[in-house]
Amino acid sequence: MYRKEIKVLDCTVRDGGLMNKWMFSDEFVKAVYKACVESGIDYMEIGYKSNTKSFSPKEYGKWRFCDEKAMAEIVGKNDTNLKLSAMADIGRIEPDDILPKSESLLDMIRVACYVNQIDKAIWLAEHCMDKGYEATINLMAVSTVMERDLNEALEDLNKSKVPVVYLVDSYGSMYCEQVELLVNKYRERLPGKTLGVHMHNNMQLAFSNTITGIIQNCNMLDATILGIGRGAGNCPLEVLLSFLKNPKFKLRPIYKVIQEHLIPLQKEIDWGYHIPYLITGAMNQHPRSAMKWMDSENKEDLVSFFNYMMDQRDF
Amino acid sequence: MYRKEIKVLDCTVRDGGLMNKWMFSDEFVKAVYKACVESGIDYMEIGYKSNTKSFSPKEYGKWRFCDEKAMAEIVGKNDTNLKLSAMADIGRIEPDDILPKSESLLDMIRVACYVNQIDKAIWLAEHCMDKGYEATINLMAVSTVMERDLNEALEDLNKSKVPVVYLVDSYGSMYCEQVELLVNKYRERLPGKTLGVHMHNNMQLAFSNTITGIIQNCNMLDATILGIGRGAGNCPLEVLLSFLKNPKFKLRPIYKVIQEHLIPLQKEIDWGYHIPYLITGAMNQHPRSAMKWMDSENKEDLVSFFNYMMDQRDF
Repeated sequence: MYRKEIKVLDCTVRDGGLMNKWMFSDEFVKAVYKACVESGIDYMEIGYKSNTKSFSPKEYGKWRFCDEKAMAEIVGKNDTNLKLSAMADIGRIEPDDILPKSESLLDMIRVACYVNQIDKAIWLAEHCMDKGYEATINLMAVSTVMERDLNEALEDLNKSKVPVVYLVDSYGSMYCEQVELLVNKYRERLPGKTLGVHMHNNMQLAFSNTITGIIQNCNMLDATILGIGRGAGNCPLEVLLSFLKNPKFKLRPIYKVIQEHLIPLQKEIDWGYHIPYLITGAMNQHPRSAMKWMDSENKEDLVSFFNYMMDQRDF
Repeated sequence: MYRKEIKVLDCTVRDGGLMNKWMFSDEFVKAVYKACVESGIDYMEIGYKSNTKSFSPKEYGKWRFCDEKAMAEIVGKNDTNLKLSAMADIGRIEPDDILPKSESLLDMIRVACYVNQIDKAIWLAEHCMDKGYEATINLMAVSTVMERDLNEALEDLNKSKVPVVYLVDSYGSMYCEQVELLVNKYRERLPGKTLGVHMHNNMQLAFSNTITGIIQNCNMLDATILGIGRGAGNCPLEVLLSFLKNPKFKLRPIYKVIQEHLIPLQKEIDWGYHIPYLITGAMNQHPRSAMKWMDSENKEDLVSFFNYMMDQRDF
């Protein structure tokens, strides 16, 4: 019943780190790595690749940078079937920050960009491929991109060497019919490329939109353990694995790391379904206002947040 | 953009009461009623209609019984556009427990049954209609019913006078393709009847399955405020209203009752997404083992619950 082409990518540390500036203990990251290896996950995205000119190491944890030394302390030589990935943001990394593949523990670099950055993103992704890595492009915030601009970006992507392109629901604002339309557009305009999905859970649709992606032949699926991630979080890895029928995936290691590490972490970081995230998602807005509200002393005043967002819309 | 035939039914008190034996304060039930009236909800299901031979009023709160006096204390004469509903379980109510409509605050009685009880359910629902009520039949646990038995039940329903039939995902184990197939089967075999959906959230699919119902022309939609309900809970009313485009629905009153009543209640009752509920849902099992586990001192030992459920399956 399973489709062997499907690959699952865990981005627990990379996307979860958006909630705590990547200040995870080594013990936590090691436990996530071990769970991914044991459960048969295909890729683990361990953080962002960026340089210390863009972010201060005093303010951000090591998974904002993904130094080789830091990675080696977690994974040794990574003598496993699990591939390692890092995400690169356009403008926060220099070409020379990418080492030749032979000198790196990373197998894949995913380039995240907004639609106006697509040319830079293609350049960077192809640069990574030239250095020996697998590469993808993750086109963010597509729910706010005008049709003509998206078509042009897809035309550029189609001409590129980049083999994998992701549909990303950055604001958690999409539902199945929108995902279906966009995936079909991507597929028609990117013949021969592999498609992926990265969904957010503001409207409790991250898993369901991932299923729509599966039905529409997307084969790279992003998820995080217990759904940890920015704001409302992501498609939960344990729900996705419960659904996929590939016998190579094991659930017990994931439940173990949830019990021992994610549930304790949930007491410190408040990701997941909360009304402010629902409100920004339903309004197709970046979650930053909701995150700010959730960090304030007004956190529990939902009506005022709703009023505030409605007022904003009037200007 | 909206479909005027769609009716939303709030079952916060009825389904939520499965978690606290309907021991809600009058203040809570009044606040839910007020929110439903102000937000333009079509129906509020205030509890179960059952008799004191089946349940002791010492052990169960008043919304297990829905006496007229108790309802009047909350809604007065209910001089609003909100219709009131109660659910009746086969075998826990006598025909004479149903008063003539003229003597009751209830507008609708929904009869819940398992497939083997379909004949009794049709009798009871038609009996309620004869007494002047709207009536529906909610066929539970359909994810474990054999195809032939379901077809026969639908044949009986088709011959009945009952105008509304619900697809119920009691175990929270369905995803979109299964919902689509079943709704299509119901529609083909029940021409002229209105279809409804009642979904549970074990796999975080309650809202998404409700969307599938909408797309497939189901017009009665169940939801509960903040998703309160048995185990993983239901489709959250606030997400559903954020999605529906009917201008008659207002969100602010729902956020108000969430802030003032549901979030405080969440500190006492642990409904919502929890791994034990995911495990029973993914296994297409009744949530009772998960609820028992969540009530025990082993609550946080997820791996042991997974092992326990796997062992059960081997016998």
